[in-house]
Amino acid sequence: MSRPPARKQENHKISRELFVLTYGALVAQLCKDYEKDEDVNICLDRMGYGIGIRLIDDFLARSAVKKCRSYSETTDMIAQVAFKMYLGVTASVSCTSAAGNEFSLVLDKNPLVDFVEELPAERASLCYCNLLCGVIRGALEMVHLAAEVTFLQDRLKGDAVTEIGITFLRKAEDRKHKR
Amino acid sequence: MSRPPARKQENHKISRELFVLTYGALVAQLCKDYEKDEDVNICLDRMGYGIGIRLIDDFLARSAVKKCRSYSETTDMIAQVAFKMYLGVTASVSCTSAAGNEFSLVLDKNPLVDFVEELPAERASLCYCNLLCGVIRGALEMVHLAAEVTFLQDRLKGDAVTEIGITFLRKAEDRKHKR
Repeated sequence: MSRPPARKQENHKISRELFVLTYGALVAQLCKDYEKDEDVNICLDRMGYGIGIRLIDDFLARSAVKKCRSYSETTDMIAQVAFKMYLGVTASVSCTSAAGNEFSLVLDKNPLVDFVEELPAERASLCYCNLLCGVIRGALEMVHLAAEVTFLQDRLKGDAVTEIGITFLRKAEDRKHKR
Repeated sequence: MSRPPARKQENHKISRELFVLTYGALVAQLCKDYEKDEDVNICLDRMGYGIGIRLIDDFLARSAVKKCRSYSETTDMIAQVAFKMYLGVTASVSCTSAAGNEFSLVLDKNPLVDFVEELPAERASLCYCNLLCGVIRGALEMVHLAAEVTFLQDRLKGDAVTEIGITFLRKAEDRKHKR
């Protein structure tokens, strides 16, 4: 089992199948723990947040990106660089508000839902991948950007694509208004 | 969802950091759910088993290995090929019984425990990575090999290395004796 010099990058990688199945076990456990889908969603988001605030250091170190100068640049960074680095896919981005603080990330492929056929009928409100939203929210907060991150469309719920919405909240006032 | 042959390998990878942090969230959730370490360990093993019985198909398809003809060959396959494929590391193997059915897998690096400093005092009996044992047990069962898989040494508990023990159970009698 000789290892060519390029192994550093490889060492940072884990098989997607193992990840996807482990993530599935996590969601299944939360569905056991909480009766309401909303509670599972909140829990996944909170877990994701905890991951995001730790992952950001790794991202900044490995990507060596410079400071983003606009929401648009930040969102592109998430969709093109971070998604690629952590999930092996990229997302396409569009700005969805005239104010320039709302964005949509569309994933043609969502690697987290391999092996998941569809949500059971009694779990119709489950945001299966809500961990992702929390990760993005946590990571953004660590670079001093408050944001709301939610699923707008979900293939698991019969939508044509998977779409994540990011709304950057400029001021405390903005945030209050949003919530 | 068409999959051209060349990019398959790349698509199968996820960042280790994301996996490790997600796994950490799973263990933390189970520690909330169960007071006793033993119950967490059993739950992780059971989840791993569920993953292993699904992962084996992926492994056989991607590794294109031939049938192993001995316990020793099977264990090498796990340590060198499967560990590399799924965790990005390999383990060294030694046979630990005269009967030739007990093996030890030693991992110098355990990718699952990055970011984990040490176990909290009140969780001294936790087998943090017990999911792995379940995965191996489940995968082996799907190729008609009954085995007991447990952690023998754990760096998180102050041991010098991480060591997984695999005992192949030849007959129903053997298994009864072992348990």
